[in-house]
Amino acid sequence: MKVRIVLGSGASHMAEEIKNKVEKFDKLLIESEVKTFPDGEKYVRVLGDGKEVLVVQSMFRPQNEHLVELLLLGDALREKGFKHLKAVVPYLAYSRQDRVTKEGEPISVRAIMKAISLYYDELYVFDLHNPKTLEYFPGKALNVSPAKAIANYFKDKLGEGLVLAPDRGALERAKTVANILGLEFSYFEKKRISPTEIQMRPVEVDVEEKNVLIVDDIISTGGTMIKAANILKGMGASKVFVVATHGVFAEGAIERVSKAVDELAVTNSIPTPVSKISLVEDILSL
Amino acid sequence: MKVRIVLGSGASHMAEEIKNKVEKFDKLLIESEVKTFPDGEKYVRVLGDGKEVLVVQSMFRPQNEHLVELLLLGDALREKGFKHLKAVVPYLAYSRQDRVTKEGEPISVRAIMKAISLYYDELYVFDLHNPKTLEYFPGKALNVSPAKAIANYFKDKLGEGLVLAPDRGALERAKTVANILGLEFSYFEKKRISPTEIQMRPVEVDVEEKNVLIVDDIISTGGTMIKAANILKGMGASKVFVVATHGVFAEGAIERVSKAVDELAVTNSIPTPVSKISLVEDILSL
Repeated sequence: MKVRIVLGSGASHMAEEIKNKVEKFDKLLIESEVKTFPDGEKYVRVLGDGKEVLVVQSMFRPQNEHLVELLLLGDALREKGFKHLKAVVPYLAYSRQDRVTKEGEPISVRAIMKAISLYYDELYVFDLHNPKTLEYFPGKALNVSPAKAIANYFKDKLGEGLVLAPDRGALERAKTVANILGLEFSYFEKKRISPTEIQMRPVEVDVEEKNVLIVDDIISTGGTMIKAANILKGMGASKVFVVATHGVFAEGAIERVSKAVDELAVTNSIPTPVSKISLVEDILSL
Repeated sequence: MKVRIVLGSGASHMAEEIKNKVEKFDKLLIESEVKTFPDGEKYVRVLGDGKEVLVVQSMFRPQNEHLVELLLLGDALREKGFKHLKAVVPYLAYSRQDRVTKEGEPISVRAIMKAISLYYDELYVFDLHNPKTLEYFPGKALNVSPAKAIANYFKDKLGEGLVLAPDRGALERAKTVANILGLEFSYFEKKRISPTEIQMRPVEVDVEEKNVLIVDDIISTGGTMIKAANILKGMGASKVFVVATHGVFAEGAIERVSKAVDELAVTNSIPTPVSKISLVEDILSL
């Protein structure tokens, strides 16, 4: 029996592409109804049967509603007799609230993962902020890399360019993308040069007259990316491209980053005007 | 060691009264911080220690945020070393989604209760729509009656009046209030007299020149209450009072019901302009 796919409202922006490609991946899309009652409560319904199902629900804003929907879909599917439920959450809300920084705080991402585990046997997220937090999910949990999709999108734009991480902690991600493309990679070193100023410079690479792709997991204000792009331009780089997995853009960030770089792109883990890189094939492969 | 009290944002409308009365109930209120990040994620923090704690969080709109907050507070309290957590949820969202009416639906209230049970050992709700659903909570779960608070509020207004339930299913609630007040009670019988019309009449009681209190669990549109009040007035009742535990009022419902009756009141399980009956003492007794 084919694996079923169910979409929550956090995946409705992927619905058409999933519909078109689902057969190729030997899965079956079943219909679901998701709406909000006048009093604000969510209502869900699934119209189909099966045993194994992949529920796709990204948790961008309104993230709390998307979580509740995911739980209600899980309850409906169990009620329907589905035996094995996989949650595919391309963007997992609360992933940056992954530790107690001030006494009295929760580890919020743990609470979210525990809630998902009430109904789901497996959890798939893309480019999780802190992959160690997967341990909080009691079942099988996997952090999926979007590197192939990102590399594929930029492969004809970079030439003999290079791939940079905005900081050392993000190096592995840049390296993976660079390796797929057969390009050089490095990262920005950050050095505090005064109480208010941090100097950034790319380590041990020559960027002059080269196209550069900066790769990060999340873009929020975009401040770091703009600074990095300006430095690269100042050092004589040809084109500067900026990509991130999750476009959690603060107000005006898309415009500000776009103005500072040659191209800005993110995946469709969150639907934004620059979500040009689709994760649908990666999702359908799960 | 005194039992601690923590308030979520779904209890902030009760904060002052709780602060004033907490000592009398030999409990200790500990501070909590609840805010929303610019991207829509909730942030909570609890500033205090202890072993046993009562977290008060009513789940009115935005109910999904209130649920997530309750989970985050639970995580923070466990992280702090609290051993025994009681959730006090005066109004439990999704309580009316208590059965599968169309194939493919979830039992939403079950999902909510299971989520709460991730962190809480005990659950207290007030006047639950369907008390049988308490079974879905794996720990100790209790349905608390607001009858004493309701009776207390109306005791000087009813005289030799009577208490009515808007339908037979709600009779027990009206009976409890009536018994506290030492008054007569009954219910409205509903009879379909044409495909579009249902006749309502109070069973075996004389309402003429009497003050009548109609008691229900939830008022939403208020249609039934208005109809019942008009019938009672037509039968010669003196004053008609309407009370419900939870004021889940649809747009304009407060005004419409208020115009049709002598007084409308609900408890503060949900903060509304007519939430005149406080559950705080009942909560602090738990």
